[in-house]
Amino acid sequence: MSASLSIAFIGTGVMGRSMAGHLQKAGHALHVHNRTREKAQALLDAGARWHDSAGSAAAGADIVITIVGFPQDVESTYLGKDGIIERARPGALLIDMTTSSPVLARRIAEAAAGRGLAALDAPVSGGDLGARDARLAIMVGGDASAFARAKPIFELMGKTINHLGGPGAGQHCKMANQIALAVGMVAWCEGLAYAKAAGLPVDLVHATISGGAAGSWVMTNLAPKAFAENYAPGFYVKHFLKDMRIALESAAELKIELPGLVLAKQLYDRVEAQGWSECGTQALYRLYAGR
Amino acid sequence: MSASLSIAFIGTGVMGRSMAGHLQKAGHALHVHNRTREKAQALLDAGARWHDSAGSAAAGADIVITIVGFPQDVESTYLGKDGIIERARPGALLIDMTTSSPVLARRIAEAAAGRGLAALDAPVSGGDLGARDARLAIMVGGDASAFARAKPIFELMGKTINHLGGPGAGQHCKMANQIALAVGMVAWCEGLAYAKAAGLPVDLVHATISGGAAGSWVMTNLAPKAFAENYAPGFYVKHFLKDMRIALESAAELKIELPGLVLAKQLYDRVEAQGWSECGTQALYRLYAGR
Repeated sequence: MSASLSIAFIGTGVMGRSMAGHLQKAGHALHVHNRTREKAQALLDAGARWHDSAGSAAAGADIVITIVGFPQDVESTYLGKDGIIERARPGALLIDMTTSSPVLARRIAEAAAGRGLAALDAPVSGGDLGARDARLAIMVGGDASAFARAKPIFELMGKTINHLGGPGAGQHCKMANQIALAVGMVAWCEGLAYAKAAGLPVDLVHATISGGAAGSWVMTNLAPKAFAENYAPGFYVKHFLKDMRIALESAAELKIELPGLVLAKQLYDRVEAQGWSECGTQALYRLYAGR
Repeated sequence: MSASLSIAFIGTGVMGRSMAGHLQKAGHALHVHNRTREKAQALLDAGARWHDSAGSAAAGADIVITIVGFPQDVESTYLGKDGIIERARPGALLIDMTTSSPVLARRIAEAAAGRGLAALDAPVSGGDLGARDARLAIMVGGDASAFARAKPIFELMGKTINHLGGPGAGQHCKMANQIALAVGMVAWCEGLAYAKAAGLPVDLVHATISGGAAGSWVMTNLAPKAFAENYAPGFYVKHFLKDMRIALESAAELKIELPGLVLAKQLYDRVEAQGWSECGTQALYRLYAGR
């Protein structure tokens, strides 16, 4: 992609501002909107143009990218009055990178098609570090032609970029990830909380088992934080709960029983009830280890 | 360790025969016993001496190693009439490498001490391949002096060799491993069964998520087997259920709630009820994916 495009970028939080920065550095013209203008300041200082609404930012853009908070934010940003679907120019490509509902992704794709727009759902994993280093995994749902058009843009932000199927398939893939992640958190917490209850040195148990068959990314990376009583958020409990809610709704629609996910959600509800929703997801260990 | 020792090795199943083979190759004199004599044949052909009972094998040995099936087998082998505690010669070092009950490990250590014997619990992880390649993780509980004495022997069989504490601590560490493993199986099965139910290509979902935060050793190594409907046992469902029973009993004694483990056990009970107890643990995916 050599030509400079006009890109609207809606949502310049921790993830979004890093991602938009990569697009800006590659020479694309950015039109930005965010609920809190200050969070877009670095992009504005580097030449991005501010808009007071998502619809206004989208109006002249070749590509519209959103990464906002909750499914209801996605819904109002796209489908609401003065929203993206209403304001985007025919032929524009819309890409929602929020972790959101697969059903909503399909609704947006249908509404987009009805107005001559292409739409992709493309949630990411890899966290703020992955966004900063342009190493995100990007999970894409939508038409193959739209995916092909978006790919050079994705390559500026991510490393593993896969097209999983039609509209909603990106969100479904992200939900598969979040389900495995949620139950995987229960896995290491229970194993190591058991070791602690048995009076074993948890650091040595961790060193003994984390490289073997019981090992996982979260055991390797989050258990040491929990042992050190460091509950600073890499990934917030409140956001994890949002994802689990979406996954449970989606599983109900698909009529698949996921008792592990149900349990993980119940446990994280207890974490939230302790007042730890602004903590990182490793706060689950605290629930077991009782500190 | 340059001097050749007389080592009794009780239990020459898939794991035991590889482990005993390493000791034999290092020049130690083996005295073997197994429920099924044929499974010891390769060791006997290489010079090991057969005994008709564990007690008889143990009677003249410097070190007695056991790796048998269930806790009741461990109990009768050590504490039964004509068992190892009764027959071992004073000063001998007893090492149980079976995955067994922490409480039983403490009972054996006490009985051993009462007769001037040293005892260690030293269960392993790493499976038949780890045993064959002498790359097991060995998790040891018991006195530090007994551990120091046993370490050169452990180094012939394993790679990660850690002393976790007093009698029972090795078993507790193994239980921590099995708890994390059990819930970790539920994690990838639910994530990928959800993806399948959503109509996504599971191989591509696996490739997308297994290298990230939701990834685990079991997702990387067992999911592809399950997708290929290969349920051949690396680790048997029936043995995994044994371990979960021990872990649940031990958690109850420690008064720690492990709802994830309770759920994993219920799910594997359903796997067994399907007639799949001789399958590998990846058969859990079949329960979700309905094949």
